[in-house]
Amino acid sequence: VDRGAFVVEGPQSVAAAVEFGRVRELYATPSAFLAHREVVDRAADLGARVAEINDVVAQAMSETEHPQGLIAVCDLQATAWPGARGAVAAEERAQIVVLDRVSDPGNAGTIIRSADAAGAQAVLLTAGSVDPHNGKCVRASAGSLFHLPVFTGADLGSVVGSYRSEGWRCVAADGYSESLLTDPAVRRMLAGPVIWVFGNEAHGVSPEVLAAVDAAVAIPILGRAESLNLAAAAAICLYAQVLADTP
Amino acid sequence: VDRGAFVVEGPQSVAAAVEFGRVRELYATPSAFLAHREVVDRAADLGARVAEINDVVAQAMSETEHPQGLIAVCDLQATAWPGARGAVAAEERAQIVVLDRVSDPGNAGTIIRSADAAGAQAVLLTAGSVDPHNGKCVRASAGSLFHLPVFTGADLGSVVGSYRSEGWRCVAADGYSESLLTDPAVRRMLAGPVIWVFGNEAHGVSPEVLAAVDAAVAIPILGRAESLNLAAAAAICLYAQVLADTP
Repeated sequence: VDRGAFVVEGPQSVAAAVEFGRVRELYATPSAFLAHREVVDRAADLGARVAEINDVVAQAMSETEHPQGLIAVCDLQATAWPGARGAVAAEERAQIVVLDRVSDPGNAGTIIRSADAAGAQAVLLTAGSVDPHNGKCVRASAGSLFHLPVFTGADLGSVVGSYRSEGWRCVAADGYSESLLTDPAVRRMLAGPVIWVFGNEAHGVSPEVLAAVDAAVAIPILGRAESLNLAAAAAICLYAQVLADTP
Repeated sequence: VDRGAFVVEGPQSVAAAVEFGRVRELYATPSAFLAHREVVDRAADLGARVAEINDVVAQAMSETEHPQGLIAVCDLQATAWPGARGAVAAEERAQIVVLDRVSDPGNAGTIIRSADAAGAQAVLLTAGSVDPHNGKCVRASAGSLFHLPVFTGADLGSVVGSYRSEGWRCVAADGYSESLLTDPAVRRMLAGPVIWVFGNEAHGVSPEVLAAVDAAVAIPILGRAESLNLAAAAAICLYAQVLADTP
């Protein structure tokens, strides 16, 4: 795979890649050809090179233990953050998700999927974050990588600076914050557009990020757990905003 | 490791196992001995057999790519569901989490961790679910496996039958339901004690489960995602109840 392309596996993700016209080459085993006829035909219609492979080749090409026989080589999907105000359309009650040095590809992909589900406008990854084209990230995103704009190399200062004047607020998830997601003041903030920031799994959000945001909030922990899984925490935060919208 | 024991890795999980007196044997590399002196001493005080191992042995014993040099052999933590009403104390505004044929150990462990964080009283796994002592599940639970009662082999009928008379309601997460987590009627239900049911990753909750529950609810999908990751969906549901508690 050349540097301008990446590999997408699994029927759900491949179907999304085909739908959004990102597939250059599509490889399918005979059984996958039969099971996903429409996806294969559509890819061919859109100009992808389609080739049949046998199970041994599918196993060799796949990163997974149980490959499903459908593998696409796609144009890179994420683009470098342009740093411009207009890069993300500012809709009412919107969400932008920023991953600040998030390192686990499974977490990144799962958060991209949750952001898509919650109706976010875009996902931005800062320098030092995992590559969203990483195979595990792609699989965890379950097609969502193709559903919303994903930008790499974002710097939070330019993101916040671009949107704050338009009424957006920047909120970081920070397990050490004294301000809770359940606080009335935080809930009021969630009624408007929010740039959410989720930090590194081990180190959390950086001091520079905490200095730049409008609020840092902790998810209340009622039991004995020290913390939540990062992707679980992100899902809770993003949907707290969705729930705040529907009183 | 014999059938009455399981392996726990990583400082956070091992510390939880030691704290709750579950460790039979503790293996540590010289550097882990130094870094986790208190945990090792406490394990020895509680009667665990402690042994030093070198990095090669640690690598061989570990299931992870980057072992952290601290490995415990513990008494089995989860127990068979006794089927009795008194098995879980019924506190006000409580949660019980049921995993119905959940197969991915990472999902199961992450949900156990989220259930712990949300203040759930117990996690029950039905027959056909992954073994909660699976290494990936243990690591994903980040110690929470030791923090709350985890039962295996539960049958939903007996669970629901035991608690419904005491005012509990049973709610299944079901992506196909027309009833949404944001519906006022659902939110009112979340103000009381809830038995949450989360189903298999590929097949969802079974028809028999849907027939037994008080409500099946879908998390609203605002974007183009087909569904959410199961552990993300569980985190959203459990914390929707926490958020419903704090108006």
